[in-house]
Amino acid sequence: MKIVVAGVDIGGTNTKIGLVDADGNLLAEGGLETGTYAQAEDFIIALDEKIRELVSGHKDIEIRGIGIGAPNANYNKGTIELAPNLRWKGIIPFAGMTEKRTGLMTRITNDANAAALGEMIFGGARETKDFIILTLGTGLGSGIVVNGEVVYGHTGFAGELGHMIVVEGGRDCGCGRRGCLETYASATGLVRTVIALLSERRDDSVLRDMKSTEITSRRVAEASAAGDAIAAEALDRTAHMIALGIANSVIFSSPEKIFLFGGLAQAGEAIFNPIIKYTNELVQPVFRGTFTIQPSLLPEARAAVLGASALIWKGLK
Amino acid sequence: MKIVVAGVDIGGTNTKIGLVDADGNLLAEGGLETGTYAQAEDFIIALDEKIRELVSGHKDIEIRGIGIGAPNANYNKGTIELAPNLRWKGIIPFAGMTEKRTGLMTRITNDANAAALGEMIFGGARETKDFIILTLGTGLGSGIVVNGEVVYGHTGFAGELGHMIVVEGGRDCGCGRRGCLETYASATGLVRTVIALLSERRDDSVLRDMKSTEITSRRVAEASAAGDAIAAEALDRTAHMIALGIANSVIFSSPEKIFLFGGLAQAGEAIFNPIIKYTNELVQPVFRGTFTIQPSLLPEARAAVLGASALIWKGLK
Repeated sequence: MKIVVAGVDIGGTNTKIGLVDADGNLLAEGGLETGTYAQAEDFIIALDEKIRELVSGHKDIEIRGIGIGAPNANYNKGTIELAPNLRWKGIIPFAGMTEKRTGLMTRITNDANAAALGEMIFGGARETKDFIILTLGTGLGSGIVVNGEVVYGHTGFAGELGHMIVVEGGRDCGCGRRGCLETYASATGLVRTVIALLSERRDDSVLRDMKSTEITSRRVAEASAAGDAIAAEALDRTAHMIALGIANSVIFSSPEKIFLFGGLAQAGEAIFNPIIKYTNELVQPVFRGTFTIQPSLLPEARAAVLGASALIWKGLK
Repeated sequence: MKIVVAGVDIGGTNTKIGLVDADGNLLAEGGLETGTYAQAEDFIIALDEKIRELVSGHKDIEIRGIGIGAPNANYNKGTIELAPNLRWKGIIPFAGMTEKRTGLMTRITNDANAAALGEMIFGGARETKDFIILTLGTGLGSGIVVNGEVVYGHTGFAGELGHMIVVEGGRDCGCGRRGCLETYASATGLVRTVIALLSERRDDSVLRDMKSTEITSRRVAEASAAGDAIAAEALDRTAHMIALGIANSVIFSSPEKIFLFGGLAQAGEAIFNPIIKYTNELVQPVFRGTFTIQPSLLPEARAAVLGASALIWKGLK
């Protein structure tokens, strides 16, 4: 009999579901269209059926629990709270509702904390008690691990490094304030920096031939690799801001490792080299050389499901 | 037989020593002149003698350990490392040397972490698992508690919120960088802000009649209370920077309480009211109203010794 855990990654459009064994193997996969369920209750019924279907497709497996990564999820309370990208409004006791329907232990957290747990149980942090993972996507998410435990804090919402104010009075942020780290240090922030540079400078650039809405971090990275000066400068400034965020995080919890995850982290040395260089300059001298900055060791496509399953696997191992 | 712990607060000039019982009562006190001991070995011999003397002065007490607060102390390693304010150079295995000499379990940490432990065991955080204490003195020290444990981090030096960069390219800091929080948000930072305002503005001010070296946070607070506009503005800007540091810390660990300690915190409502107002403006909305900002409940004169003793008491209780 093989023990498995269901890892569930809830996004605004789609939900991925996988059965994960103790070694991080994905034994079965499925999905649901999140956006088609107007009520969380209906979604949970469909989720229950889908998990039963995946389990019934395998002989000799026993499911021990459900780990869920979802936007605005609160680990302490088991809730999804006021998530702007989901149709389900208000504060939903999601973990409790899922436990009641499925009869299985259920834990929930946000995707960045799930990424941290995935790194801890299946990735590059298996021997690491103190680390931070930054997920560089539309925004900047973070999972912070201290003494081998994810920091959830008093409210359950701790670990919002994307909302560290790094430039007072700076760029507008979706949170309603200004100058938050993620307005500079994210794929979206990179694009905003490109647009700022197109106004500041007069250099030729392939990026001038795109609409603002067509500029993506991938196109900026490609342009930079092809020698585009605006693109190169935008990547450099973005790396600088990521480094500032890292330097201001290291003084807090003195991690051994910093993992970068997400599209922007896949730009490879073009982004890691300047991040490492600027972090060395910006970090308090006592911490220089005491930590590494490296890519997440979880495969991008499976990371969210593995991370969600790690919510349960952490307690089983 | 009453159990006690020795709390030792090592400063550059003087060292305070106290015998502390489980309720935080100071049963005996003594001191040493730190600066007169060229070698740590000699200091430890004197410390051992002084503790024995204090213990022998009481009937029916049994000492269980020694907790030490010292500059640049590393809890993980038990060392004092490269402390600029002490005569003892290099990396000193202070806790181990003290254990060997005295035969008593010895733990060491820096004064801000000791303050956090004091608050946890004897002060306002006895029921609080997630809190931060900021010590506002010459610099800005901090002790961070997550899940009921002080955050020491991989290196043992975690919790250096005074070295969060809040103004890139800002004021020179003693750490060799620029724009660190403590260059604005400390007694010294307040005085630097006064001097900046004396150049920016033309208002009359009693502070113009003092040498820069004569301006203290107490004098600024007094001048502000007497209606001095420059002093009031300097306090307001300092409160704003303390609030920014708090807002950028809350996103990290989502504490239930923030304690302020030290000379600047004793300015009462004149400093707490603007700090609370600015923190509400600056903090990420999801955390608004989820934490309090309050003065430390430890009496200033005994806090360092109580905090140091709490290093041991935490394990005994």
